[in-house]
Amino acid sequence: MSYQTDPWQLAWRGLDVGSLDRTESSFALSNGHIGLRGTLEEGEPRGLPGTYLNGFYEEHQLPYGEGGYGYPEAGQTVVNVTDGKIVRLLVEDEPLDMRYGRALSHERVLDFRSGTLRRRTEWESPTGRRVTVRTERLVSFTQRAVAAIHYEIEPAEDIQLVVQSDLLANEPIEQRSGDPRVAAALEDPLVADFAAARGSRAVLAHHTRHSGLRMAAAMDHTLHTKDNLRTNIHAEDDLARFTVAVDVRKGERLRLTKYLGYGWSANRSVPALRAQVEAALDGALQTGWEGLLAEQRAFLDRFWAAADVEIDGDERVQQAIRFALFHVLQAGARGETRAIAGKGLTGPGYDGHAFWDTEIFVLPLLTYTVPEAARDALRWRHSTLDKALERAQQLGQRGAAFPWRSINGAECSAYWPAGTAAFHVSGDVAYATAQYVAATGDEDFERECGAELLIETARLWAALGHHDPQDGFRIDGVTGPDEYSAIVDNNVYTNLIAQKNLREAVAACERQPDVARRLEVSDDEVSAWTTAADAMTVPYDRALDVHEQSEGFTAHAEWDFAGTPDSGYPLLLNYPYFDLYRKQVIKQADLVLAMHLRGDAFSDEEKARNFAYYEARTVRDSSLSAGTQAVLAAEIGHLDLAYSYLLEAVFTDLDDLHGNSRNGLHMASLAGAWTAVVAGFGGMRDHGGKVTFAPRTPPALNRLSFRIRLRDTRFSVTVDRDSATYRVDSGPPLHTSHHGEAIVVETGSEVTLPIPPAPEPPKVSQPEGRAPRGRT
Amino acid sequence: MSYQTDPWQLAWRGLDVGSLDRTESSFALSNGHIGLRGTLEEGEPRGLPGTYLNGFYEEHQLPYGEGGYGYPEAGQTVVNVTDGKIVRLLVEDEPLDMRYGRALSHERVLDFRSGTLRRRTEWESPTGRRVTVRTERLVSFTQRAVAAIHYEIEPAEDIQLVVQSDLLANEPIEQRSGDPRVAAALEDPLVADFAAARGSRAVLAHHTRHSGLRMAAAMDHTLHTKDNLRTNIHAEDDLARFTVAVDVRKGERLRLTKYLGYGWSANRSVPALRAQVEAALDGALQTGWEGLLAEQRAFLDRFWAAADVEIDGDERVQQAIRFALFHVLQAGARGETRAIAGKGLTGPGYDGHAFWDTEIFVLPLLTYTVPEAARDALRWRHSTLDKALERAQQLGQRGAAFPWRSINGAECSAYWPAGTAAFHVSGDVAYATAQYVAATGDEDFERECGAELLIETARLWAALGHHDPQDGFRIDGVTGPDEYSAIVDNNVYTNLIAQKNLREAVAACERQPDVARRLEVSDDEVSAWTTAADAMTVPYDRALDVHEQSEGFTAHAEWDFAGTPDSGYPLLLNYPYFDLYRKQVIKQADLVLAMHLRGDAFSDEEKARNFAYYEARTVRDSSLSAGTQAVLAAEIGHLDLAYSYLLEAVFTDLDDLHGNSRNGLHMASLAGAWTAVVAGFGGMRDHGGKVTFAPRTPPALNRLSFRIRLRDTRFSVTVDRDSATYRVDSGPPLHTSHHGEAIVVETGSEVTLPIPPAPEPPKVSQPEGRAPRGRT
Repeated sequence: MSYQTDPWQLAWRGLDVGSLDRTESSFALSNGHIGLRGTLEEGEPRGLPGTYLNGFYEEHQLPYGEGGYGYPEAGQTVVNVTDGKIVRLLVEDEPLDMRYGRALSHERVLDFRSGTLRRRTEWESPTGRRVTVRTERLVSFTQRAVAAIHYEIEPAEDIQLVVQSDLLANEPIEQRSGDPRVAAALEDPLVADFAAARGSRAVLAHHTRHSGLRMAAAMDHTLHTKDNLRTNIHAEDDLARFTVAVDVRKGERLRLTKYLGYGWSANRSVPALRAQVEAALDGALQTGWEGLLAEQRAFLDRFWAAADVEIDGDERVQQAIRFALFHVLQAGARGETRAIAGKGLTGPGYDGHAFWDTEIFVLPLLTYTVPEAARDALRWRHSTLDKALERAQQLGQRGAAFPWRSINGAECSAYWPAGTAAFHVSGDVAYATAQYVAATGDEDFERECGAELLIETARLWAALGHHDPQDGFRIDGVTGPDEYSAIVDNNVYTNLIAQKNLREAVAACERQPDVARRLEVSDDEVSAWTTAADAMTVPYDRALDVHEQSEGFTAHAEWDFAGTPDSGYPLLLNYPYFDLYRKQVIKQADLVLAMHLRGDAFSDEEKARNFAYYEARTVRDSSLSAGTQAVLAAEIGHLDLAYSYLLEAVFTDLDDLHGNSRNGLHMASLAGAWTAVVAGFGGMRDHGGKVTFAPRTPPALNRLSFRIRLRDTRFSVTVDRDSATYRVDSGPPLHTSHHGEAIVVETGSEVTLPIPPAPEPPKVSQPEGRAPRGRT
Repeated sequence: MSYQTDPWQLAWRGLDVGSLDRTESSFALSNGHIGLRGTLEEGEPRGLPGTYLNGFYEEHQLPYGEGGYGYPEAGQTVVNVTDGKIVRLLVEDEPLDMRYGRALSHERVLDFRSGTLRRRTEWESPTGRRVTVRTERLVSFTQRAVAAIHYEIEPAEDIQLVVQSDLLANEPIEQRSGDPRVAAALEDPLVADFAAARGSRAVLAHHTRHSGLRMAAAMDHTLHTKDNLRTNIHAEDDLARFTVAVDVRKGERLRLTKYLGYGWSANRSVPALRAQVEAALDGALQTGWEGLLAEQRAFLDRFWAAADVEIDGDERVQQAIRFALFHVLQAGARGETRAIAGKGLTGPGYDGHAFWDTEIFVLPLLTYTVPEAARDALRWRHSTLDKALERAQQLGQRGAAFPWRSINGAECSAYWPAGTAAFHVSGDVAYATAQYVAATGDEDFERECGAELLIETARLWAALGHHDPQDGFRIDGVTGPDEYSAIVDNNVYTNLIAQKNLREAVAACERQPDVARRLEVSDDEVSAWTTAADAMTVPYDRALDVHEQSEGFTAHAEWDFAGTPDSGYPLLLNYPYFDLYRKQVIKQADLVLAMHLRGDAFSDEEKARNFAYYEARTVRDSSLSAGTQAVLAAEIGHLDLAYSYLLEAVFTDLDDLHGNSRNGLHMASLAGAWTAVVAGFGGMRDHGGKVTFAPRTPPALNRLSFRIRLRDTRFSVTVDRDSATYRVDSGPPLHTSHHGEAIVVETGSEVTLPIPPAPEPPKVSQPEGRAPRGRT
């Protein structure tokens, strides 16, 4: 069984219990604040239930066999909070459970335009009674604290129905942590503070035992039915239940709308949180189900007008790219100074942590389509600046050292060679900041957050690096993006990201002298940044005529790809770090990512040679790679290969290519698919804040188009086989370039330009068995 | 309060409760099989009680916040076994406890010639009754399973005395592990299997809960007193007690001898272990206390005749060097295919693990003085070869990868960058093997163990390294001796140790063709070893004209020594690894150790320049450094500095220079003091199996001499200000060289030769505040 192909929705027909866990991720609804995995209303069968609130976590001690100075002591893990999705049905005393009786038909549909998950199930109970259940649920983009479920039952004969609508806390779920202390911290993580029920409404409030965060969940209901019904409400510590018992005649329907309100806080009291979630409910009730649907659709209409990507030539790819855009939007839309986690709010993978993925892979999409979401994510980083400054100081550095992985901004990585040492994360934050400011011209943000982010991260590089008489400015002992290398000197990606960071900080100080003054940036400091940026070491192997991913990389032994069986991947589960680190095997784009983000630092010839060299050594045991490889493959002229990488990126979750989509969707890979289209086939670059295009369609497609917002200009780029059309829909005229030729496109008009033939690049190959995995 | 200076003993007068823990380490008695910390007989006050059996450990899970392939899962920790040292005294119902009443005098003496710990305490009870207690205890060098305590009380008036002699298991001691699971594993680690008592004898048998090792402890007693006494014996799970109640008249003495028998096994049954320890007791009883004393003295007379070092010019140094020799002997004398742990059996430090320290710092002393002990320690390594082969395979290598830290031979390091990556440990085993074989000509050992050790370690290097067209044979991604660097390429020490290992393996295959055939060593394999050794990369910085500790080391930033306060040391407790690793700060001799062990690979000028360069960057946060720095300082002509390093090495424990002697003595530092004298001032080298001397006395001393056994030749070297005398006591004539001049010394005769003036070396300095810490 698999998903149905459709350009605007994702549907799954029939029940496949074994696939439930990954479909729950695909069918997850979220607005960036609340996340509901796509579990069935009746709760079971289930894969991995999950209800998440962005930023709500439990803390646990991080264990070390041998500790060290500066090792983070506390870990954070996303908590499965009070589950309000549950609506149970009893059909004449038989609980609706798809594992029993017969499902005559069953379909679930995630609709990218309505922003809802619909379900239609025709079920025959073991004793032969038939009902049709139709549900639709949403997590509101417009009312941030609200989710709602519309539940409708139509019996095939006169029948008694009992519906139980629950709030359930401390749902028992299988614990997956190998550390008994972590498992213990997550078993019954919620301590009951308050429970109340009245009429059709109930509220439960809890707090976490160690992190001390408080949350409240509330539900209310409206019923659309004839009379002859009995309702009941009840609340205890970990359960609130609204029960409806009713006789429904054949041909009639029982309709129930369940409204959910969620809130959490580290500071507010239980009464305040209760008031907050009840207010959310009252707002939602006033809007009503149809009103919520309408707001949701209008929100998404605006999104698709700003962000849609059209693919002509492959319907599955069309569907998958919209699936990707929809989920990235869900992850970021209403985060509002909370992180965008690696899995969004679709699952408990990576403990719910945010990584550099957000800034480098997710934010470009948001910056150029829904910039408010990008701004909010960067405001979250800024809100954690105190922790980053403290961390840098603890590490003996200056400025801001952002964490490798975190929920609240404090470093949670228990393995420093691939955590703390990956200082590039701070440069990535700076990169996204500069990109956002250049794309939006958002001066308020720059004054309030952006300049400070750039300055404090530049200070980190100035402290981390040092001038060497021979080599210039060196940044030693760090870990770049490639997690199969660690603790290296002069990682090209890191150094070029640092170089950009330093230069952007200089520019920000010029634009925002008040901020610079407040942060006591001296002229000497600024000139030291310039000097360091100018002298930045970029190691190059003259014998091989390629850049070294980091100093000495190309002298390392080759990995024995021929001797590595398929079952040996991902390598990190089958080979020791020490051996991965010291060989020329690359987990994910590193130098290739540098050639994308800092393409201005490489010549075309270097790009082609480097790409060929690193392509042959990159195994993509990470989902953070295919999109970037697509971009560079397209740039150097390997359009077929680029398309294959687009497929891998865009089907990572739909085809579960990494076998772990059950734990949540790979946001960076989903966003990477957009990047593959826009920066790959669109050739969009924004070096130095100047946006340019060099579009080319892959042979497999007839046409593709995408939409971009740049400051107040909204425009689309349509790429045909031989020409590209730039159309400005609104805002000021567009000044850009097409394959190096400067163009101006007036508002309301379009410009069509021919596409020059692609260069003839050197042949490239991947390690044995590691060709792109996507398929159409 | 401090130790009394005396050439042949270590004495402490008076009671200093705050110093008890470190004096317990200094006063520890051991024969390499049993270790008894120097606690007072009455059990309290105490610092850190400890009774150890070599190789007897408990297992516990190693925790990881983020795990990885090949991470060791089980940790091992030495167990404080059943304590048989306890003899309690009640003086008319007042327990003898030095914290109460008054100590009129109190002295403890560790006698290096008798091999016993003596005590004399004159005590007045709180109610004014005086007794004099004299005790003497030994752990027998000649009867491996036996310890004994002679206990004598002389009252100052007629008095009733009650003596309780205990075997006490699961002694409650403060747990120091931060990991609750480790602490749990070590709380009451012994599970009772058997307890029996009869007459004056009792036996307790236990096993460990997780590692499943069994042990038995037994005691028996002889009493020398008038009648009018009542004795009683009793045994329960964790306690056996022999009680004597007696009236003693003024001027008379109560004399009790307590015999202890210890044994453990992973395989033998409880009855078998009981039989074993009872047999040990019967043997000891038959020998008797005076007999044990006599055997002990005879054993030590032979040791001192073979190993003594005489220092003329500083009595404290004379005492300290004998203290060092005595404790190294205790650690290794009767280990017999058990490891020599980093702390010997003097304390629970390092969890009782053995490291590379044994082979590189401890074994040279044993090899050239009591070679049987060195052989046994190498046989232990050989007995763990199966685990080392398995570990190498798990790591994707060939041959043998010996563990960084272990009790039973399985890797127990939970931090791979400073554990698994420190592959030099396998080269160190090979180094000690080759050194032992060359020094002794022990063909049996080479055939049974030595050749196999050399071959399997050579195989590791062949797998770990690779040939590079430009650089030759590279060994990348390893950690050398300096623990402030990690995961580096081409560490000079590692590469030169590997080079020697490869060459020694080639030679061993020639000498032992049968072994080579059994291990399926092909001609191609042997020639690959030679090729690799010949092409071994040794990185050198041409601009600075010094060797790079590892590739790129000299391009790293300098450590800010001026900005590092005294309280910042040891650096690893106050700065993060990432910052230590990427800067030119060195914990312990690394390149300098290479210049000692592989001095044949450096010119004199290189040694002088390298020494000056690395001296200025070495902080000695490790006890494994001073002895080696002494050796090189002496070689290049810094005799004063070499003497200062000798002082630091030799007083590491007596002056508690690292503040952790309570956890046990630093065996490598104690042995390093011998190396400072013999290889430093004696200039002894054994490159390529040829032993040479280049002696020079430091200005602070008038004369020094040391004794060496080389094959069957026993000789002494006496170094005066201007000349050196070589005297052969027995065995064949000595062929060696003196400052480069070949000499032959006939048996029974001596040769005196002038000492050429020392070279004028470049000035050297240490990092601020890190000058040698020893004092006289």
